[in-house]
Amino acid sequence: MTMNKVAIIGVGHTKFGKIQDKGLMDLLCEASLTAIEDSNTNDKDFDSVYVGAMSPEILNKTAGVASALVDRISLIPAAADDIKNGPASGGSAIKAGFQAIASGMSELVLVVGGEKMTHITTPGYVTSTVATLTQPEAERPHGVSLPSFAGLLTRAYLEKYNAKLEWISDIAIKNHKNGALNPNAHFQKTIEDFMKIAIEKGRGSWDNIYEFLSDDKTNPIIADPLRLFHICPISDGAAALVLCNAEKAKQYNDMPIMISGVGQATDTHIVFEREEIITLKALKICSSQAYQMAKKTPKDIDVAELHDAFEILEAVQSEDIGFFKKGEGAKAAHEGLTEIGGKIPINPSGGLKARGHPLGATGVAQVIELYWQLRGEAGKRQVTSAETGITCNFGGFGNNIISILVERM
Amino acid sequence: MTMNKVAIIGVGHTKFGKIQDKGLMDLLCEASLTAIEDSNTNDKDFDSVYVGAMSPEILNKTAGVASALVDRISLIPAAADDIKNGPASGGSAIKAGFQAIASGMSELVLVVGGEKMTHITTPGYVTSTVATLTQPEAERPHGVSLPSFAGLLTRAYLEKYNAKLEWISDIAIKNHKNGALNPNAHFQKTIEDFMKIAIEKGRGSWDNIYEFLSDDKTNPIIADPLRLFHICPISDGAAALVLCNAEKAKQYNDMPIMISGVGQATDTHIVFEREEIITLKALKICSSQAYQMAKKTPKDIDVAELHDAFEILEAVQSEDIGFFKKGEGAKAAHEGLTEIGGKIPINPSGGLKARGHPLGATGVAQVIELYWQLRGEAGKRQVTSAETGITCNFGGFGNNIISILVERM
Repeated sequence: MTMNKVAIIGVGHTKFGKIQDKGLMDLLCEASLTAIEDSNTNDKDFDSVYVGAMSPEILNKTAGVASALVDRISLIPAAADDIKNGPASGGSAIKAGFQAIASGMSELVLVVGGEKMTHITTPGYVTSTVATLTQPEAERPHGVSLPSFAGLLTRAYLEKYNAKLEWISDIAIKNHKNGALNPNAHFQKTIEDFMKIAIEKGRGSWDNIYEFLSDDKTNPIIADPLRLFHICPISDGAAALVLCNAEKAKQYNDMPIMISGVGQATDTHIVFEREEIITLKALKICSSQAYQMAKKTPKDIDVAELHDAFEILEAVQSEDIGFFKKGEGAKAAHEGLTEIGGKIPINPSGGLKARGHPLGATGVAQVIELYWQLRGEAGKRQVTSAETGITCNFGGFGNNIISILVERM
Repeated sequence: MTMNKVAIIGVGHTKFGKIQDKGLMDLLCEASLTAIEDSNTNDKDFDSVYVGAMSPEILNKTAGVASALVDRISLIPAAADDIKNGPASGGSAIKAGFQAIASGMSELVLVVGGEKMTHITTPGYVTSTVATLTQPEAERPHGVSLPSFAGLLTRAYLEKYNAKLEWISDIAIKNHKNGALNPNAHFQKTIEDFMKIAIEKGRGSWDNIYEFLSDDKTNPIIADPLRLFHICPISDGAAALVLCNAEKAKQYNDMPIMISGVGQATDTHIVFEREEIITLKALKICSSQAYQMAKKTPKDIDVAELHDAFEILEAVQSEDIGFFKKGEGAKAAHEGLTEIGGKIPINPSGGLKARGHPLGATGVAQVIELYWQLRGEAGKRQVTSAETGITCNFGGFGNNIISILVERM
């Protein structure tokens, strides 16, 4: 049999950032209602709703978020499930929605990802919550957290490939530059902007951006050698997609975007057991699945949204997803190949670094950015004539990765 | 297009109960490995793993359970996701696995549900955890919990249908009688057994079981009028299924069981907003979906596993799933129609009351009981020549229900 094809016919994206006047459910509702309105489905019945949120139980003292959402936005009796895969919960929710339609069980599906985190004020609480993804015997009791893994990975990468930390900084610089063009981004400032503000406020004086980024006060070390500006923020936000059987998509939308490849793969839970820490085996596998399903190769990709929770990850992912040879990702970023207008633009949205990272929302927001790029609706950050895009959404520390390939219909 | 058909080719079921020497991951591994061995798939690659567990984040301080499981049982790089729908997380995980195969995205899928709860010793902690499913503004702050809803529902039912509380007790009596025949059950004792033990220990003396069940000491009121023996226990345990594209099922298993109907529907999150508290609208809808998909009617069902977290629920569900007219479910149980050997045997496993209720495990255990019944492998609790069965797995307080219909191939 051939599976039903699946198209995106509507999107909704809240502002990401420190959203003090809204709770998790408010954010999910806002993104969902925007997506439904955008889809022109009007009062058509939705069959299923999938919510990707990593930790509402801990961060928001609530469970059954999907069940509550369908009531709040009047989609009852639609089926509703919460899908969890750490910071890749959004990607997994999209995959669940994709399978609901591909199987023929659903025609019209709402997928929404979101997280509300910035209300947590206890120091370390959010990082500890995310660290519940680490291995409970071999890693967590030894104080390992996701930032510490990223620090180790950076050291290993710089040493093995004779790369420079400045090249990793270049990724942050690029992503902040892109984020400054994205009205939904958590940070709509370039790093130059941050430097100018610091100078104006008399916090110091620097000749150039690299000097500013080496200052222990303005850019403190978080997980050596990674500093604050190498790491994504803690954000609030939500993002939603309306998915539809592709055969019916044009009834609702003049220019639906097709989800033509979906891949997901796991790797060892214990990071030190991996053959090579610098290679994301799960990404190699899941992106291959997505390329194969869509009958594409990395060369066909015009734009990508990768999971730069730590800037080193964008470099490594850009290699393992097939854009650059092993060890050349950071250098490529340094040389500008991944900028908007470069050979393969990565994270025109600003990525997790600048758009922000409300865990469950990220995987959905990545696909929305590609939807806008492929429709030519990305405003000042538009990649010229983008027709095909791919994502990498990262669960745990690379032990469960999802890749979604979208293209124009 | 027609969707791929889905068959069950292997099952694994740990003992349910107070399992002191095993953690959540141990239980999930045990059920999974048993199911995989039972499926004769040997070293065949699994494509996907779905884990249904309601609250590992809160009860076990761990997240990303599915990712961790695939590593522990060496199924890497299989895709892995956690599926949550409160106490119906197991049912939702089965639906996710069903859709993975029905869509053609997966061929071989492991579905496992489980929960580890009895290690929690803080009074009220587990009930509060489950109460995170109630509406956070209209219900939870007023002290509403799931047992309190069940108490209210019981009062409304008894009044409206002129039913007797003893008939609700009869459901508990039947389920304990069945559970006594189930080696995996949390309680393998009839209520008569409990009464005899209490008499031997000098705790009192009663002429019959109804007297024993009216004793405030031996059977205290939990949520008036419901007493301890009207309510399921807190249990540990896990249950797993291996699902396979039905076309290939006989390569592995002489007598695979087909999942021929799957339904899921939601109702208002706020219970007092329902048209009628005594009618489970979501169950009416989702069971209709399952019947329709399988081209069956309630008359075709030979055996059912319903979600008797509170014994009143079995009565109400037996009506809304189509076995009895509205208001006649409790009386039917009182008259023995739902016993093994009765008109429509319900919960031959012992149900949640006696088999126990490790939240995420329940939906999967229900389907396993039907698998055994349909294959004639249910031992002393075998329903004669059962060919078709259906489940009701209950999320929240009836606001998200799943119904799965299985039949012989």
